[in-house]
Amino acid sequence: MTDKEQKQRLHKKKMEKLKSSVDSSIAAANAERGVSILLTGNGKGKSSSAFGMVIRTLGYSLRAGVVQFIKGEQLSGEELYIRDRCPEVTFYQIGTGFTWDTQDRSGDISAAIRTWKEAAKMLGDPSYNLVVLDELTYMLSFKYLDEGEVIKALTNRPKGQSVIVTGRGGGSALIDWADTVSDIKDVKHAYNSGIKARKGVDY
Amino acid sequence: MTDKEQKQRLHKKKMEKLKSSVDSSIAAANAERGVSILLTGNGKGKSSSAFGMVIRTLGYSLRAGVVQFIKGEQLSGEELYIRDRCPEVTFYQIGTGFTWDTQDRSGDISAAIRTWKEAAKMLGDPSYNLVVLDELTYMLSFKYLDEGEVIKALTNRPKGQSVIVTGRGGGSALIDWADTVSDIKDVKHAYNSGIKARKGVDY
Repeated sequence: MTDKEQKQRLHKKKMEKLKSSVDSSIAAANAERGVSILLTGNGKGKSSSAFGMVIRTLGYSLRAGVVQFIKGEQLSGEELYIRDRCPEVTFYQIGTGFTWDTQDRSGDISAAIRTWKEAAKMLGDPSYNLVVLDELTYMLSFKYLDEGEVIKALTNRPKGQSVIVTGRGGGSALIDWADTVSDIKDVKHAYNSGIKARKGVDY
Repeated sequence: MTDKEQKQRLHKKKMEKLKSSVDSSIAAANAERGVSILLTGNGKGKSSSAFGMVIRTLGYSLRAGVVQFIKGEQLSGEELYIRDRCPEVTFYQIGTGFTWDTQDRSGDISAAIRTWKEAAKMLGDPSYNLVVLDELTYMLSFKYLDEGEVIKALTNRPKGQSVIVTGRGGGSALIDWADTVSDIKDVKHAYNSGIKARKGVDY
């Protein structure tokens, strides 16, 4: 047997083993229902990942709704895109700036509660296949919303509906609730090397 | 001062501090150039995040290209979406299944090299504002592509172009190259509680 054949044989064996392990996990997972996902941590990629899943959902002509609990000073690329090209997506955004810009606790609380009502409507409507609650975690960590009430609505949603919650510092109740939790670690960020936030990437 | 006023005052102080710290990081970051991003780790959210940034880019009518180095057995939601609704996005996909399905090392290598050529074209073309190299890391860890050559093309790309590389196990050369690195930790996954992969969320 030549070196190349030997390498090919070893590769095939390794890949067969990997495939059989992946296949058995897939076979074991057979419950058909919507999944609950928490994307947390300090690293880049939480909201963009949620928007990527909106696109996946639309790819199958399924229905998606997005509620954003924090609003930046300028329109973001995903907002512009959804407004201009995805009229079928229900998009609701809190009508106030970043909480560290407003510095007004009672105003923030009313805005959070008003926005939560829109989220709760989607969580009660089985026609939504995917609901994204972008930056919801802050509303809980700032105690703008009641955690128990939020977890209850998330848990009692229609069986076929998937939900994605994003934001830093999702507490233990959200972690317990979610089927899938990704903790996005900030290994490094362009910011810290003096590179400006980039249109189309950061916002 | 009432309890409520006291709480409001403390909140305002905390938020002012947070805002001033965020503002000074933003002010320090002033280099205008494309960013390089590595999304790695075992958790869910790497490719979907890259697709979210494609949408952000399109939101500003900027140009995006996507090269996928691994192909699943079925069409994914993002593929369907981009094919049907974003004809302006250049989309190239390796013409072979998952490497653990093909189990053919030399066939995989030719496919990887052919696909890399398409990626290299985009990395040499300043009309692309964003280039996504989805699952590229595997091509390096399996040694299907030459790491030195890949890093060189990534580094020498046009100044205004941003690049996102996704996949588990990006090695140290990729980590050194990237301006931003997010390591997506798999805290838990629906899979392991027996929930089937979900259309619109997982693919």
